[in-house]
Amino acid sequence: MTDPTGIGGPVLVIGSGLIGASVGLALRRAGVDVLLRDADPDNLAVAVDAGAGRIAGPGDLPALVVVAVPPSLAGQVLADASAEFVDATLTDTTSVKESVLADAIARGADPTRLVGGHPMAGREVSGAAGARTDLLDDRLWVLTPLAESGIEHVRQAHRLVSACGAYPVEMGAREHDAAVALVSHTPQVLASVLAGQLLASDPDRVRIAGQGLRDMTRIAGSNVGLWTDILSANAGQVAAVLDEVVAALSRTADALRSGDGREGVAGMLAAGVEGQLLIPGKHGAAPSAYREVTVMLADRPGELGRLFAVASEAEVSVEDVRIEHVLGRPSGLVALFVRPEAGEDLVWALTERGFDVRV
Amino acid sequence: MTDPTGIGGPVLVIGSGLIGASVGLALRRAGVDVLLRDADPDNLAVAVDAGAGRIAGPGDLPALVVVAVPPSLAGQVLADASAEFVDATLTDTTSVKESVLADAIARGADPTRLVGGHPMAGREVSGAAGARTDLLDDRLWVLTPLAESGIEHVRQAHRLVSACGAYPVEMGAREHDAAVALVSHTPQVLASVLAGQLLASDPDRVRIAGQGLRDMTRIAGSNVGLWTDILSANAGQVAAVLDEVVAALSRTADALRSGDGREGVAGMLAAGVEGQLLIPGKHGAAPSAYREVTVMLADRPGELGRLFAVASEAEVSVEDVRIEHVLGRPSGLVALFVRPEAGEDLVWALTERGFDVRV
Repeated sequence: MTDPTGIGGPVLVIGSGLIGASVGLALRRAGVDVLLRDADPDNLAVAVDAGAGRIAGPGDLPALVVVAVPPSLAGQVLADASAEFVDATLTDTTSVKESVLADAIARGADPTRLVGGHPMAGREVSGAAGARTDLLDDRLWVLTPLAESGIEHVRQAHRLVSACGAYPVEMGAREHDAAVALVSHTPQVLASVLAGQLLASDPDRVRIAGQGLRDMTRIAGSNVGLWTDILSANAGQVAAVLDEVVAALSRTADALRSGDGREGVAGMLAAGVEGQLLIPGKHGAAPSAYREVTVMLADRPGELGRLFAVASEAEVSVEDVRIEHVLGRPSGLVALFVRPEAGEDLVWALTERGFDVRV
Repeated sequence: MTDPTGIGGPVLVIGSGLIGASVGLALRRAGVDVLLRDADPDNLAVAVDAGAGRIAGPGDLPALVVVAVPPSLAGQVLADASAEFVDATLTDTTSVKESVLADAIARGADPTRLVGGHPMAGREVSGAAGARTDLLDDRLWVLTPLAESGIEHVRQAHRLVSACGAYPVEMGAREHDAAVALVSHTPQVLASVLAGQLLASDPDRVRIAGQGLRDMTRIAGSNVGLWTDILSANAGQVAAVLDEVVAALSRTADALRSGDGREGVAGMLAAGVEGQLLIPGKHGAAPSAYREVTVMLADRPGELGRLFAVASEAEVSVEDVRIEHVLGRPSGLVALFVRPEAGEDLVWALTERGFDVRV
């Protein structure tokens, strides 16, 4: 039997939450025999029903073990798996690497078979019920081999990542933790703290909130237990970034109070403009690469479909779509993003077909 | 000649930036005679060309003057307009109310004709070139009448708001400023400070950033001069909110460093979850009201159009669309949000037509 992934045996996924079950689904898609374990039988049943794999039996011998449990448990689970499957490659999916890997080794995991991992994917939901076959498609998946990691085990980890449709990126565990403290963990704290401020305020004040506040608090809805774990496991790195943010915010507050701090405020804002340009992703890096065509849709079923049908007939490829929401409902205002040279064709086609194209 | 808006005369818009030119466009749509002024002749020409109004002549007598200039200039411009047009209602569109109105009165504006205003709308772009007829449609527009404001002038301000397609909300100037400090000005500072942190970091760290960081820094791209003005004009209220945010962030950093601070971290995260639920808007308030159907599109022009055509044929009304972006390009992964009862129909129709619907 051929094995296009090259993994050469079953993969055991321990932990059938959002990431574990999604890894199982992606590996099944790639034709891999996936074994599942979860301390919670209900979660396990949901993952099996979803097609993420089968329940591991006593005779099953995995070539690779993926530990997809919260950071506070991952060290022990990796150590146990190391003892149970003495030849298997061991990896995990937790979002903190240095403390988790050190904990695993301290508890007896074999460092020569251990390669840390962290797929850069997630959703605002958690649990096997939120799992998707495509969750990892085209995502970066950081791998943090140890100095002791055997080359064949590093290769197995790369095969796992590719089999799941993701792109492997190698970096050191400490470097990874510093990076996620900056780009993921600190943003989470800022979103949660900002959203928390709303609790103490007059509800009428929140009523006039716009898209800015919604964007800035979207991730505040994340799972409290999981994020307590993540932040605690990366405590030092996160606290260091928070210190810098606190210093910058305090400088801004002081500048505002001084009555003579326009330069300080302007400098803070200008650094933000410059910093934002460093972020990968179309909206962050090059918002002006596309022409935006805005259409006010009638509030009838199927209008959005009709809109796209006209674009399609006009042979205009829509690169992106945004629907704005105001007062808690879709505004009917749809922004289509197309290549600049196609903008006029689209405006013409839509106008001709009676759409309310806004200038 | 009938005047459906009831304003009963021309409206002079002073300042042809994003908001001023959009007000002009919306009033022209409502059939109002709009006079435009701008210190910058190029900006004025763009606004006139866009159809936002005509250049004010010596004999033109406005019934209402809308001052749409930055906060640092608005007081003087309101005072000048008060002296020039001794019967006109005076309003503005600046995002800070107490200091601007006090400045206007100190410089001689007639308080009986003065009604502060702030449309809750904006874009990441600025200038007349970014103006849109629909920018104010369905938006809240805060009006802050003074104790001295004459009732007929308050009514005129309401007519202006309605003529622009927005919804008037009355509140006190100080209450407005406290509200925007919380829901708009502090989020702007947090986004800018967070984005600014990226400048000092290793570029490789930013490479693994995901949607969370993009959301948290989207508004960091805003206009530096305008926002320096806004924050400076609302300095006291913004500094007060920043102090609270700094205190909460410092408590979190301390809890992380204490090694025994899980409760503090969990409490901060839980407050964020609760606070987020207070924010109006579909995604913030009720993310689970719709069924999400995810489709991986082939990278061919028109696929998005074909997708919508199938939904339309299946008589499924798509309530929202999101396209994810990874590694700086659209991933091909499209999430359609539909009413829960329509989800199965859509999955069936798309699968039947060969679309790659993901579980």
